Amino acid sequence: MTGKYFIMSITRTLKTLTTASPVCRQVASSSRPATVRDATVFVSQRSIFGLISCCKLFSTSSSAMEDITNIHYGPLPADSPYVKPFRFYYTQNGKQKNWDLLKVHDSVSIVIFNVTRQKLVFVKQFRPAVYHGLVSAEAGEDGRSIDMKKFPPSLAVTLELCAGIVDKPIPWVDIAREEVLEECGYDVLSERIEEIMSYRSGVGTSGSLQTLFYVEVKDEDKVPAAGGGVDDELIEVVEYSLEEARKLTAKGNVLTSPPSFLFGVLWFLTNRAPPAKA
Amino acid sequence: MTGKYFIMSITRTLKTLTTASPVCRQVASSSRPATVRDATVFVSQRSIFGLISCCKLFSTSSSAMEDITNIHYGPLPADSPYVKPFRFYYTQNGKQKNWDLLKVHDSVSIVIFNVTRQKLVFVKQFRPAVYHGLVSAEAGEDGRSIDMKKFPPSLAVTLELCAGIVDKPIPWVDIAREEVLEECGYDVLSERIEEIMSYRSGVGTSGSLQTLFYVEVKDEDKVPAAGGGVDDELIEVVEYSLEEARKLTAKGNVLTSPPSFLFGVLWFLTNRAPPAKA
Repeated sequence: MTGKYFIMSITRTLKTLTTASPVCRQVASSSRPATVRDATVFVSQRSIFGLISCCKLFSTSSSAMEDITNIHYGPLPADSPYVKPFRFYYTQNGKQKNWDLLKVHDSVSIVIFNVTRQKLVFVKQFRPAVYHGLVSAEAGEDGRSIDMKKFPPSLAVTLELCAGIVDKPIPWVDIAREEVLEECGYDVLSERIEEIMSYRSGVGTSGSLQTLFYVEVKDEDKVPAAGGGVDDELIEVVEYSLEEARKLTAKGNVLTSPPSFLFGVLWFLTNRAPPAKA
Repeated sequence: MTGKYFIMSITRTLKTLTTASPVCRQVASSSRPATVRDATVFVSQRSIFGLISCCKLFSTSSSAMEDITNIHYGPLPADSPYVKPFRFYYTQNGKQKNWDLLKVHDSVSIVIFNVTRQKLVFVKQFRPAVYHGLVSAEAGEDGRSIDMKKFPPSLAVTLELCAGIVDKPIPWVDIAREEVLEECGYDVLSERIEEIMSYRSGVGTSGSLQTLFYVEVKDEDKVPAAGGGVDDELIEVVEYSLEEARKLTAKGNVLTSPPSFLFGVLWFLTNRAPPAKA
């Protein structure tokens, strides 16, 4: 990210916020479900300005990430590189059957524990699929009739493990290494990344494989200019203490996180977390 | 399921197996990944005959479930009730973006613990999406060139929690109750089912909500004729001891299970499992 883009980003964020458009007011009044507790926000350089300006003007829960407008839907283009749906026909035990599914990329996800700060490092981002999941019962066919006061974009900001798709022929641990740097700003050698296990990230509509990794990082591994995603990504890096992380897996929560996040956190707490002090 | 269907089912299974078609030989020689360990197989009435005939003729890992032939693909029909893909357009922080996603049903999943037998109750089924995930790099566009010797259907038999989609306007706990009966054959009142938490079953391509439940069952809750799925479903009910379940979440595994399964198992082991005997 260049300095120029930085300035543009701040200017745009401030302009957007100070003109107080309807969406901006929604951002200002939005809040996460009470069950998703935020720890120290340790934002990357890419998103820090948007966040700081939001914090000053409104609350800590608003950010450039949640400045979402102009939502509409269209048909899936036939050449979508991300979603390739089709019908799978087969005969099982003599009976003809079919199943609608789609091909998506395999992926990696990484539990990151900062041993210097004794904090787990997660990412937050606005997820269109979660937003659509929330509003789909209400929104019209083109999505333009969404009541954004009732459904502020902040509702679809997810808390996840650092993760990425496998879209090039290199060892998966190296893809994990890249994601740790690009999303969270820690530069670690692949040798320091431990492979935990692999599972199918979905079994109903997509059967792609996901491998879970674990890495311990230190403050000195942090690259000041890195993190927050690449290209158009707007990702916030957040830190959770062990106690805060434990609460995420407690009964009664309603989270925007995926189950791979919950498993990764609980696996860490069970197998790698330092014992609680007496 | 009627008795007539039962007999037809046995006849077909035996006929298929004894004619020893190429697929049948593949079924016979197939085996699960070594990391997915099987506990006592506690099959429902619906699938027990297929399983027993397989066991007698071949091995315990083969079943009618894995008798898969005639795989081919086709375009997704526009009226698919299960997968509705589209492109989601939005403006984030002043930048136009889009995301390809699909609407799928919300769902429930249930951790079932049989206190009489001190066993966790899971389900196994052949999952087309997982099979496709495994073979997609090799198979041709229509899927007919799949090397079924290299990729026996058993590779895509998943181990999962009892689960189901939310496809009717009744309380989700009642849907959970129905699934416990239909898939696993235990008839319990909804009041006995404990809601644990909700999360987004996917965040990349589908943001549907899943609620995790927990129920303790006893042998006396078992309805002899129930379980194994309804209609065309071929589901095996399997039981895992606490120790066997613990191994599923161990480092190094490569599982066909989804992360919601792993989280549910680990959540149970952490929060509800009886303490290990000294």
